[in-house]
Formats: sequence, structure tokens, C-alpha cells
Amino acid sequence: MSTSTTTNENITAKTVFIKMALSAWDTYNERVNKLINSLSDEQLIAETAPGRNSGIYLFGHLIAVSDGLFPILGFGERLYPELDKIFVVNPDRSGLAMPSINELKEYWKKVNAKLTDHILQLPDDEWFTRHNNVSEADFANEPHRNKLNIIINRTNHTSYHLGQLVYLAKKQTKED
Amino acid sequence: MSTSTTTNENITAKTVFIKMALSAWDTYNERVNKLINSLSDEQLIAETAPGRNSGIYLFGHLIAVSDGLFPILGFGERLYPELDKIFVVNPDRSGLAMPSINELKEYWKKVNAKLTDHILQLPDDEWFTRHNNVSEADFANEPHRNKLNIIINRTNHTSYHLGQLVYLAKKQTKED
Repeated sequence: MSTSTTTNENITAKTVFIKMALSAWDTYNERVNKLINSLSDEQLIAETAPGRNSGIYLFGHLIAVSDGLFPILGFGERLYPELDKIFVVNPDRSGLAMPSINELKEYWKKVNAKLTDHILQLPDDEWFTRHNNVSEADFANEPHRNKLNIIINRTNHTSYHLGQLVYLAKKQTKED
Repeated sequence: MSTSTTTNENITAKTVFIKMALSAWDTYNERVNKLINSLSDEQLIAETAPGRNSGIYLFGHLIAVSDGLFPILGFGERLYPELDKIFVVNPDRSGLAMPSINELKEYWKKVNAKLTDHILQLPDDEWFTRHNNVSEADFANEPHRNKLNIIINRTNHTSYHLGQLVYLAKKQTKED
């Protein structure tokens, strides 16, 4: 392999990075989606383990965190800012009223559909620009704190909670 | 911003992208490390939830999967290939003898130390080459299936099981 790097090779490299990060994001969201749709309301309301977060709380938490991506990525206003208080700021069993499971499923779909629209429209170069949770000064020193990095981190956040949500399902395989 | 992309900008983009993926990998491994070291042997032997995988099984599973990275990434031979049968091929409670917790902690350290050595030595361009679980023909069509992508996917795998392993600890925060 030549050590010189042509512009074309690098444009491809950028496109490839974006695909790597977005593929993982899509994969884990789809796994959550498939799991949630396979669970009964009774299973979703249950605790993932004794004394731990309920399925509905973790589902609401994932929706709220994904909804929070709109302002962070410069994609506009959140759809459901009211979810933060219930599912992020406060713990499960806070006494705050939660939306119903059907409402949450609707929110999940709408947040993901709108996010996907924005994600597909974002020009490649924009992924490597600053997101709105990092200052210009910090970004100058830490250019990896860009928009695509948020997607990588949020994918790990989703997979973390997916590992817990699978405990709501009947045990099937060793990976559950 | 100019739409033309200079070679220098792209070399930086590559370096930045590698940093993004490796930072997330390090973060999640460090979180596992911290958790494992905070747990008693009794906690580690327990099930993460009723009827689900034990802590020791999931810990062994993470070690085996990380150890499997050596051949996949062209980093040489595995250190502990015998772990696969116990922690990957077979489920928990298979009746196969497991290493002790202290042995596993030692393996975890050694696998991570050797992996880190190889990771730090790999030239930037090599991260975007084919890994050994994908054929040359498939890689030609799917260039995102490169070595760095393995790191991104394995980080998500680690965070998935970390979400389960935290159930071994005493409940402290809503994120547990």
C-alpha cells in the first residue's frame, strides 16, 4: 500500500466512517424495536430484575435520550421534551405519571423517523463538526467530540440498556 | 466551509475517527474493569437476574470475545483459546469447569494489556483494512467491514453485557 493518500481515497474513508457509525446505530435501534414489539404490556411494565428499572422506564429513557439528539446535533427542537423529567432527571417509581405504553411506542417511532430523516440529509463533512454540547474552545482541542461521536456514544448507551431490556423476555438463548 | 477536501484535512479525519472508536472501547473496558474490581467473589458468582447468566460467566464471555480479537485483527494467536468452549460456545451452567475468579481477573488484565499494545502500534491506515472474518470479495463491496468496525461492534457488545453486570452491584443510581 502506498503511504501517500489521495483526496478520493479520503473522501471514501470519511463516507466509510459514517457508514460504520450509522450502521451500528441502526442495528441497535432495530434490536430495541424488535424486542419492544415482541413484549406484552405486562412484560414491559415489569422490572428488568428485582428492584431494578422497569421495562417501560428504560424504554421511555431511550426515547428521551434519542429525542435529546435533535438540539445536540442541530436538528431542531425536541419532539417530547417533557419526557426528560420523567425518564432522565428522575428515577423509576418517582411517582410522576408516565405516558402509556402505546403512547411511548408512538413517540419511539416518531423520534426515530425524524432522526433518520435528519441523519440521511446531513452532508458527510458536517458529521465531523462540533455538536452543541461541546464549546468551540473545547472542540478546538478535542476534535473527536463531533456529531458522529455522539452517535457512537449513544449507540453504546442503547446497547447497555438493551442488555437489560432483554431480561423482560422469556429466556431463549445464552446471550439473553 | 469549502466543499473541497484537502489531503491534510482527511488525514486528520482518519486520525480523529480512530480516536473516536478507540476512546469508546477504552471507556467501556474501563467501566467493566472498575465494576469487576468493586464486586466481591460472592457477587460475581451470583446470577445477574433470576435464571440469567452469572457474573462470572459474563465476565469470562467478555474475556473470551476480547481474546478472539487477536486473530480477527491480525494481532497473532489468542492467549486463552480454551475459554471459547466454556464462555462462548456453551451457555452458563453447562457443567464445564470454569477458571477461578482470580484466574479470570488475571486473564482479563493480560488480554487487555496485549490488545492495547497491538492497538497502539497499528498504523492508522491499517484500521481501514479488511479484518480476518470477512472475505476479500465481501470486503470489496463492503469496505466498512474493516478492523476499526470490529472495535465499534465489540464496544457495543461490551456495553450490552455491562448493562447486565451492573445488576450484580448494590443498587445505587437510577442508571444501574
